[in-house]
Amino acid sequence: MIIVMEPTATREQINVVVKNLENKGFRIILNEGDVMTVIAAIGDKRLVEPQSLASYEGVQNIKLIQEPYKLASRTAQQHDTIIEFDNGVKIGGNDKPVLMVGPCSVEEDYDGLLRVAEAAKEAGVYFLRGGAFKPRTSPYDFQGLEERGLKYLAKAREATGLLVVTELMDASEMDMVCHYTDVIQIGARNMQNFKLLKAVGKCGKPVILKRGAAAEVREFLLAAEHIMANGNEKVILCERGIKGIDSTFTRNTLDIAAIPVIKKYSHLPVIADPSHGTGRRYLIEPMSKAALVAGAHGLMVEVHHDPDNASSDGAQSLSIEMFKKYAENINRLIGRIDYDNHHIEAKV
Amino acid sequence: MIIVMEPTATREQINVVVKNLENKGFRIILNEGDVMTVIAAIGDKRLVEPQSLASYEGVQNIKLIQEPYKLASRTAQQHDTIIEFDNGVKIGGNDKPVLMVGPCSVEEDYDGLLRVAEAAKEAGVYFLRGGAFKPRTSPYDFQGLEERGLKYLAKAREATGLLVVTELMDASEMDMVCHYTDVIQIGARNMQNFKLLKAVGKCGKPVILKRGAAAEVREFLLAAEHIMANGNEKVILCERGIKGIDSTFTRNTLDIAAIPVIKKYSHLPVIADPSHGTGRRYLIEPMSKAALVAGAHGLMVEVHHDPDNASSDGAQSLSIEMFKKYAENINRLIGRIDYDNHHIEAKV
Amino acid sequence: MIIVMEPTATREQINVVVKNLENKGFRIILNEGDVMTVIAAIGDKRLVEPQSLASYEGVQNIKLIQEPYKLASRTAQQHDTIIEFDNGVKIGGNDKPVLMVGPCSVEEDYDGLLRVAEAAKEAGVYFLRGGAFKPRTSPYDFQGLEERGLKYLAKAREATGLLVVTELMDASEMDMVCHYTDVIQIGARNMQNFKLLKAVGKCGKPVILKRGAAAEVREFLLAAEHIMANGNEKVILCERGIKGIDSTFTRNTLDIAAIPVIKKYSHLPVIADPSHGTGRRYLIEPMSKAALVAGAHGLMVEVHHDPDNASSDGAQSLSIEMFKKYAENINRLIGRIDYDNHHIEAKV
Amino acid sequence: MIIVMEPTATREQINVVVKNLENKGFRIILNEGDVMTVIAAIGDKRLVEPQSLASYEGVQNIKLIQEPYKLASRTAQQHDTIIEFDNGVKIGGNDKPVLMVGPCSVEEDYDGLLRVAEAAKEAGVYFLRGGAFKPRTSPYDFQGLEERGLKYLAKAREATGLLVVTELMDASEMDMVCHYTDVIQIGARNMQNFKLLKAVGKCGKPVILKRGAAAEVREFLLAAEHIMANGNEKVILCERGIKGIDSTFTRNTLDIAAIPVIKKYSHLPVIADPSHGTGRRYLIEPMSKAALVAGAHGLMVEVHHDPDNASSDGAQSLSIEMFKKYAENINRLIGRIDYDNHHIEAKV
Repeated sequence: MIIVMEPTATREQINVVVKNLENKGFRIILNEGDVMTVIAAIGDKRLVEPQSLASYEGVQNIKLIQEPYKLASRTAQQHDTIIEFDNGVKIGGNDKPVLMVGPCSVEEDYDGLLRVAEAAKEAGVYFLRGGAFKPRTSPYDFQGLEERGLKYLAKAREATGLLVVTELMDASEMDMVCHYTDVIQIGARNMQNFKLLKAVGKCGKPVILKRGAAAEVREFLLAAEHIMANGNEKVILCERGIKGIDSTFTRNTLDIAAIPVIKKYSHLPVIADPSHGTGRRYLIEPMSKAALVAGAHGLMVEVHHDPDNASSDGAQSLSIEMFKKYAENINRLIGRIDYDNHHIEAKV
Repeated sequence: MIIVMEPTATREQINVVVKNLENKGFRIILNEGDVMTVIAAIGDKRLVEPQSLASYEGVQNIKLIQEPYKLASRTAQQHDTIIEFDNGVKIGGNDKPVLMVGPCSVEEDYDGLLRVAEAAKEAGVYFLRGGAFKPRTSPYDFQGLEERGLKYLAKAREATGLLVVTELMDASEMDMVCHYTDVIQIGARNMQNFKLLKAVGKCGKPVILKRGAAAEVREFLLAAEHIMANGNEKVILCERGIKGIDSTFTRNTLDIAAIPVIKKYSHLPVIADPSHGTGRRYLIEPMSKAALVAGAHGLMVEVHHDPDNASSDGAQSLSIEMFKKYAENINRLIGRIDYDNHHIEAKV
Repeated sequence: MIIVMEPTATREQINVVVKNLENKGFRIILNEGDVMTVIAAIGDKRLVEPQSLASYEGVQNIKLIQEPYKLASRTAQQHDTIIEFDNGVKIGGNDKPVLMVGPCSVEEDYDGLLRVAEAAKEAGVYFLRGGAFKPRTSPYDFQGLEERGLKYLAKAREATGLLVVTELMDASEMDMVCHYTDVIQIGARNMQNFKLLKAVGKCGKPVILKRGAAAEVREFLLAAEHIMANGNEKVILCERGIKGIDSTFTRNTLDIAAIPVIKKYSHLPVIADPSHGTGRRYLIEPMSKAALVAGAHGLMVEVHHDPDNASSDGAQSLSIEMFKKYAENINRLIGRIDYDNHHIEAKV
Repeated sequence: MIIVMEPTATREQINVVVKNLENKGFRIILNEGDVMTVIAAIGDKRLVEPQSLASYEGVQNIKLIQEPYKLASRTAQQHDTIIEFDNGVKIGGNDKPVLMVGPCSVEEDYDGLLRVAEAAKEAGVYFLRGGAFKPRTSPYDFQGLEERGLKYLAKAREATGLLVVTELMDASEMDMVCHYTDVIQIGARNMQNFKLLKAVGKCGKPVILKRGAAAEVREFLLAAEHIMANGNEKVILCERGIKGIDSTFTRNTLDIAAIPVIKKYSHLPVIADPSHGTGRRYLIEPMSKAALVAGAHGLMVEVHHDPDNASSDGAQSLSIEMFKKYAENINRLIGRIDYDNHHIEAKV
């Protein structure tokens, strides 16, 4: 930790800071410049709340050297985390990227869901996604089928063998959701719902953690850290678009660079959601390709049997017909990427 | 709702959209321009998911005319909501702005908390704030005293007569928190934790809802709508800073203009939090003044008996000594504002 | 244009707006809803300053239907603009993407520049880029070699046959810069320097217009419109990263989705600059690939013979050695993209 | 400057960085931590391009300690810069804030301009503002009267004794603009038009520099530094709103906190522009008050004799009638602020 003192800081003010840090076990190196004094404090940042130091008289600002996440960090674990499922599918490392496909919301029409699942299976997809609990900006929008939706997902899994991904919105429903799902999803709006992160930290299922719309990469990795510090290391990070400067043409700004950035600083798998990340159907395919060549370990894409009448997010969903063409193009691209080589490049 | 068709949209594509809307009970006005066709659909937006329309072939974009919030809207209720407490204190309308004062986190040193509460009372403040459950970006930071913290707050209330404000982080703890508090606070990171909003909608206590760091005003009012639609109309909105373009000098960008904007479009009371909104102690006073003259109904300010050793947010907390001077200046300013006149100006 | 009136607007206020618009030649359709009145004004937006309408009593807001750019719009010209150079190289449409390669600043070491140019040529590159006038945030940073830099570029062109791209910062230097360059670059900070846009509108050379760091796509296309409306239709748009929410890991957020968005709404060629767009060398390759598969017509990449001692932007420059490996990978990817098909996909 | 090495950096990589810095005259302090090595380089940052260091193998990132601006910095000059005009009016320090009032664009109706100027004078205002050269997002919007507009301003000055403020858009027009104006304004879109900054650095007139819509405070002060380093120290900084997350209700987000922040780190006067900063007429008064109590040295406000027919920005202009009421309220507030005391508070 580096503490930069104001140019006007007195000797006494400097001493107060130094003594406080020494008391907390830090080793101190004092650099007295012509203009200002800089204090380097060597030791474990977790011993001190850096913001509290900022309140000392004479302190100009604090610069952290070590990032505050530990378990999620590439420093702590050099090799990639690879999450393996019972059927042998893997997410992470140099393994072939996976697709997660399905409607935004599970709806009453089970047959529609099944048709999506079957089309997915036929295209070589292993994961079926669908929301039973829907976080909606307006209280008047469709809120999801709740447990009935989970049952439909489980039924579709039975019929097709696909693994199920669904969102958990509240710790009190964790047991119910875990009963039906293979992968738990934490939505972007809940990325800093720490009670929920703690809860899924105590469950054994893999967790897809979506990046909050205004979350810095550091905050995103710290949210993963909340899950990992509670015992669950099977975390998959999902870039799904940040608040951009322009909402006329896209719903969010898909931050493609975050994929190689996260792969450099963390060992966790990273996937992308081009449906939410753009909000426009015609952007799903180019942005899926962009995410893959930038190193994504997977894609989460909304597919609906009748997007025009979907109860949510129809505009960013592919129809089954569109999906077939999409899957063909994406599978062709995946077939052409040299993953062993690719991985190395992304890390250089 | 206005549906703008692509310049290349066919007659058939236009008909599909029109028929769909008519089936849902909308009255249609068709404007066929030289370049493109524009469809105006008159009726209740809640009958249709506007985003789903965007997926129809030939649709360029959808423009909403009516805002989707109802209960929170000034259109639905012309007069200001005023929240009145048992001791006669009021928040909202043309009433004198209120201060909410106390440490970021309640800590083991009850005596310190009491000294803050006493100084607040002496300065004419009616509300003591303090966190017992702390949402922290890092899992390794102090997480709060939980119920013990709530007990300290209740004890300080008994000693001073101040009303207590504290944060609720999870629906499962609502009964416990309500038992001890007079006002429930929902933190910025939970602004779209819809389960939590629904829960506090069913409790009788006034709720302070903090604006998310990337929440548009529309999303903020819709979050309030979630609480109101579940039965609790005593919602106080709190501007606490949005993600800005510059984090070197301030933690967030306090969006002062949001105060008169919200007062124009909603009848709910609006307060500001210059501590979180800036993250710097020296900015608390000028930004408190700015919020007040822009029309804020109150201020939430962090005061700690020993900021240098606070377990959280010391850098943005005032010491008791600083607070005394601050309260003197703020009270002088409040005394000089002509609130009846001020209110009218803010609305013009 | 749609004018939404306040719910409280009087009949008289509505009449004032309607009469004003009719006087300006608009055809009016009045939709009187239960809650509010909506006025649709059909006609040429250029006849009226929409913001001025917003000042009328009773007007809530104005929604534009037609985008204000004309010449840059896909509506005005359905087919792609393709810019062709004397040596037969083309930018735009379904043509093979081009690379523009060279140092951020041209420096005194001409031999270094030549080595970069030769490496570029060997890799099949047709454009050499380099700055002679440097816009620098600090007045104390290196400001460029000015005309001497232009001469070095021209000399390297003579030696290698590469086309030269260089930045113009001020209209007064246009003749000088045009004398030496094949393509004029307008920097992101000058995207709304309207005097400069007007000037290059009157020159015959193709112009690369970089997107401002906070420019919406609409503003970007309007900046292009300034050039085109002054007579120069050879505009190449360059996405180079927008101000993001996180400057810890990247300098800007490269908005990859802007590439297919612009291709849908404009016929102009679009390239990307992954060097400025990320500010980190290790991100150049993955983001170059992402831009290409998302449909970019070209890439602008910084390459320096000695990045560790570059006078600007060394951290985002490739060395010649790195560039060779990079070009091999990028050329392999370009070879694998089916451009005819790709283009269609990006537009769907 | 602090250079943080990657945890995996080798001894040799560290030595390369150290040797390079020593060669450039820096004194080096090496902190070898358990996890990573941190190099502190003491010396003048201007000797090295910090970004170039970032390109060395093994370097994780660079943290600057000293801000790169010098002349604009409070460190270089402790006392406030006060700009004094021939008629005795002062801007800066503890002097009474000034108002700058007038239409966005000067128009053909000179009589209208004169009526605004007379109303301003009557209200105790000393500055008349108005644009003769207009930077417009669209090439089809009104571009200003150019020299004829300047003549109207000069005529109004003669009639009323008000000082004139007008925008300069291009260095080539500097002599003409200086001939007519008392204060030169540099617009937000030109904040980093370095040729223009350099030009006004060489003229003797005071310069109002508007903050770019996405400019960090550091970039803003460095833009001022460009003017000062070229010889003109009479720079007035103007906060005029940054790109926010919500453009539905306001055009920009007026960053009120930037006012006390800049006053802490720079000695230059700071004013605010609540017209551009909000884009809504009803927000001008509350935001003017907010800026003043936060410490602004002045306000720039758009007033038009007929806002409904203004050729630009009518929606954010006050009519003469509204201005009279506004000036009364603002003057009353100014009369109540204790400026000597205020200044001290803002600096604490």
